[in-house]
Amino acid sequence: MANSEACASALELFNSITTQGEHVRALKARNASKDEIDSAVKMLLSLKMSYKAAMGEDYKADCPPGNPAPGINHGPEATEAEEDFVDPWTVQTSSAKGIDYDKLIVRFGSSKIDKELINRIERATGQRPHHFLRRGIFFSHRLGSNSYHDSNCKEVSTYIKGDISFLPPCFFRWLQDVFNVPLVIQMTDDEKYLWKDLTLDQAYGYAVENAKDIIACGFDINKTFIFSDLDYMGMSPGFYKNVVKIQKHVTFNQVKGIFGFTDSDSIGKISFPAIQAAPSFSNSFPQIFGDRTDIQCLIPCAIDQDPYFRMTRDVAPKIGYPKPALLHSTFFPALQGAQTKMSASDPNSSIFLTDTAKQIKTKVNKHAFSGGRDTIEEHRQFGGNCDVDVSFMYLTFFLEDDDKLEQIRKDYSSGAMLTGELKKTLIEVLQPLIAEHQARRKEVTDEIVKEFMTPRKLSFDFQ
Amino acid sequence: MANSEACASALELFNSITTQGEHVRALKARNASKDEIDSAVKMLLSLKMSYKAAMGEDYKADCPPGNPAPGINHGPEATEAEEDFVDPWTVQTSSAKGIDYDKLIVRFGSSKIDKELINRIERATGQRPHHFLRRGIFFSHRLGSNSYHDSNCKEVSTYIKGDISFLPPCFFRWLQDVFNVPLVIQMTDDEKYLWKDLTLDQAYGYAVENAKDIIACGFDINKTFIFSDLDYMGMSPGFYKNVVKIQKHVTFNQVKGIFGFTDSDSIGKISFPAIQAAPSFSNSFPQIFGDRTDIQCLIPCAIDQDPYFRMTRDVAPKIGYPKPALLHSTFFPALQGAQTKMSASDPNSSIFLTDTAKQIKTKVNKHAFSGGRDTIEEHRQFGGNCDVDVSFMYLTFFLEDDDKLEQIRKDYSSGAMLTGELKKTLIEVLQPLIAEHQARRKEVTDEIVKEFMTPRKLSFDFQ
Repeated sequence: MANSEACASALELFNSITTQGEHVRALKARNASKDEIDSAVKMLLSLKMSYKAAMGEDYKADCPPGNPAPGINHGPEATEAEEDFVDPWTVQTSSAKGIDYDKLIVRFGSSKIDKELINRIERATGQRPHHFLRRGIFFSHRLGSNSYHDSNCKEVSTYIKGDISFLPPCFFRWLQDVFNVPLVIQMTDDEKYLWKDLTLDQAYGYAVENAKDIIACGFDINKTFIFSDLDYMGMSPGFYKNVVKIQKHVTFNQVKGIFGFTDSDSIGKISFPAIQAAPSFSNSFPQIFGDRTDIQCLIPCAIDQDPYFRMTRDVAPKIGYPKPALLHSTFFPALQGAQTKMSASDPNSSIFLTDTAKQIKTKVNKHAFSGGRDTIEEHRQFGGNCDVDVSFMYLTFFLEDDDKLEQIRKDYSSGAMLTGELKKTLIEVLQPLIAEHQARRKEVTDEIVKEFMTPRKLSFDFQ
Repeated sequence: MANSEACASALELFNSITTQGEHVRALKARNASKDEIDSAVKMLLSLKMSYKAAMGEDYKADCPPGNPAPGINHGPEATEAEEDFVDPWTVQTSSAKGIDYDKLIVRFGSSKIDKELINRIERATGQRPHHFLRRGIFFSHRLGSNSYHDSNCKEVSTYIKGDISFLPPCFFRWLQDVFNVPLVIQMTDDEKYLWKDLTLDQAYGYAVENAKDIIACGFDINKTFIFSDLDYMGMSPGFYKNVVKIQKHVTFNQVKGIFGFTDSDSIGKISFPAIQAAPSFSNSFPQIFGDRTDIQCLIPCAIDQDPYFRMTRDVAPKIGYPKPALLHSTFFPALQGAQTKMSASDPNSSIFLTDTAKQIKTKVNKHAFSGGRDTIEEHRQFGGNCDVDVSFMYLTFFLEDDDKLEQIRKDYSSGAMLTGELKKTLIEVLQPLIAEHQARRKEVTDEIVKEFMTPRKLSFDFQ
């Protein structure tokens, strides 16, 4: 017991150093003042000294206490991976393969979704795991003590909270189906308003347009509630109460450490993490769950959103609520390469749901970063590189057929398949997907949106 | 023009120094760390140096730029008055007469309610000014460009926002009557929850009890809306939107300067000033005012609440709303003397609405600080001191008859009236006041409270 406590506190120190390191990088990234950076670096060094004093050895970024020897790579690559920067607003890496997700798991202190867990989920649900799970697109989790992977998973009182901005929604639909649980989708239009140069009406307008896209993905209206923060705060007897509860238990020091806020940030930004966190607790939705606080929330999100929910999981026991469980996905890569995540503000950075067949073709052909060789001859001889080829990465998201995908991987790697052919395959997968989506979206009337966004009872099975 | 701009910027600097000085005092008052205090003092000194460089002379606390020579008192008393400390949570002075309110007007940059303004209000309303105005209990204002004191005041689109905790509500009733406007009463139960060791339910419970006392004062239900923040946030389509708007336009640096928050404060406290501010804008109450944003808010409050509304007035033009107008009152003194304001948590610090006739008698006799002499002989010879006598101060609040009050002042000052007799007079004024209040409060049913706290249309005259 004493030993495991010592471990926990060493781990806490380790995590503080990690967080402080991220903070320093964030300061540098935004060209903060020398004073600010110096003082953050001083704090970092002092934490590292405490760590050495406690552990008898230097802090190593990829070697948390109680986790001996990740071994293999302590050389230049370790240093390079340390350059990855991930927070809710910025994702950057210098590697064309994208972020080193295994290192992120270590740094964030989450757990890997391994083959065994996927098998257990398959046994528990009786369903073939979604290809996002099979292919490691969801690669990390914080499932803690809940039992999604136990045989009684259907009886777990759970709801799913989604923030769908950068994730293909099919995975949410799959989860909702196999667990048969309610799904609440938070649209943080207040965040958009606080961070961007928008009016409230514009921010809300975007949320409604977003809702149409979500609805067009075919969610069951009896099990799905979509809400805008700006709208729902004034309709829910429970939401604001949870916001205040969370806000009471998080200090500015904490959000400064987690999100890199500074004294010049607006008090709106500073207090926003509590708004993001509150829907993780079921009594934020009294219309759905009454005053029950024991229903656990499962949050599938891109890994860059993890800081919000690390904070939420810290706060939960302090205010008597269960910790939300998390499933982390990789980033949907930008067409230009996996160094950054796609950006909604750059029309060429990704395929959008509004794109025409022609735009899709042009974008893929023109902008999708290729892992092919410089000449056809070289390509035929040495083969292409699927690890950095964005068209191939997109296929892992959108092509459900495992055999076909594997065949493409082999053919492209061997040089049998040329870049033009790979891109053509992707275009032929995307064009009907997007066209069907657009057709379904046209059917989504304002009345249907209103219905989805009206607080009401949802149907669910558990007690 | 250039000249007045220079003045404005010197005044800004002056105000920054004042604010920073208050911040230093706040840090000292709460025994902040040496580092924190040192860094705040350093900032203060640097501001003072900038001021001297800009103005060619030293910063003097009671001599703002463009306001030549308050003259009379630059000696020890000026220093003493500088020791007054006033913010929303702490009011302290070393003088038994209480805070030097004239100095506060200079320091806060508000305006004095003088005889001329009172006469204009009398002419405009056709009503005798309330004794709180006649006697200088409301002593300061920020009425700006509105026209409460013009002949057309009845046509001004105004509502009154009250935070009644430490002010006898009769003044609000008088204002509501003479201007015939809606009154909204904000009960900041979220603030109580954030600052104190209470549950949400407890904080809300106190708010409801508080509402009963307010209702018992006889407010017109057709013109009065009472709301708890915790409750109303989830019922108003407009409140949260205004909160976010305000939060976007206020930085942590600003609330740090105004309220003395530190990095260790909860993000709830840090963002709370926006909650306090939002009801100053009429579209926070769509049930009452629709989406109108042009209706001006008049806020009578104790002067220690001014920082919230200085902030609100700063933000208002940035978000396209009219600035709220303010009337500032002195503090209701503690029985023990005017050095501090009364505290709800110390039962002997004031007369409470729940006190029995006997408790009133005992408290006044035992705890009310006396301005009388040590012996009857001395008292008869030299007279008592009304300026420090708390019983006399209470009479200025509760005895409406000016002639009678003046007679008491004369008799006590001359020594014709003894302290026991003065206290007896106060007891005889308070006992029926409180007893009547208690009788009326008993009539306030839960249904009536619910009605007052239900968002709904209110009646008003203006266009």
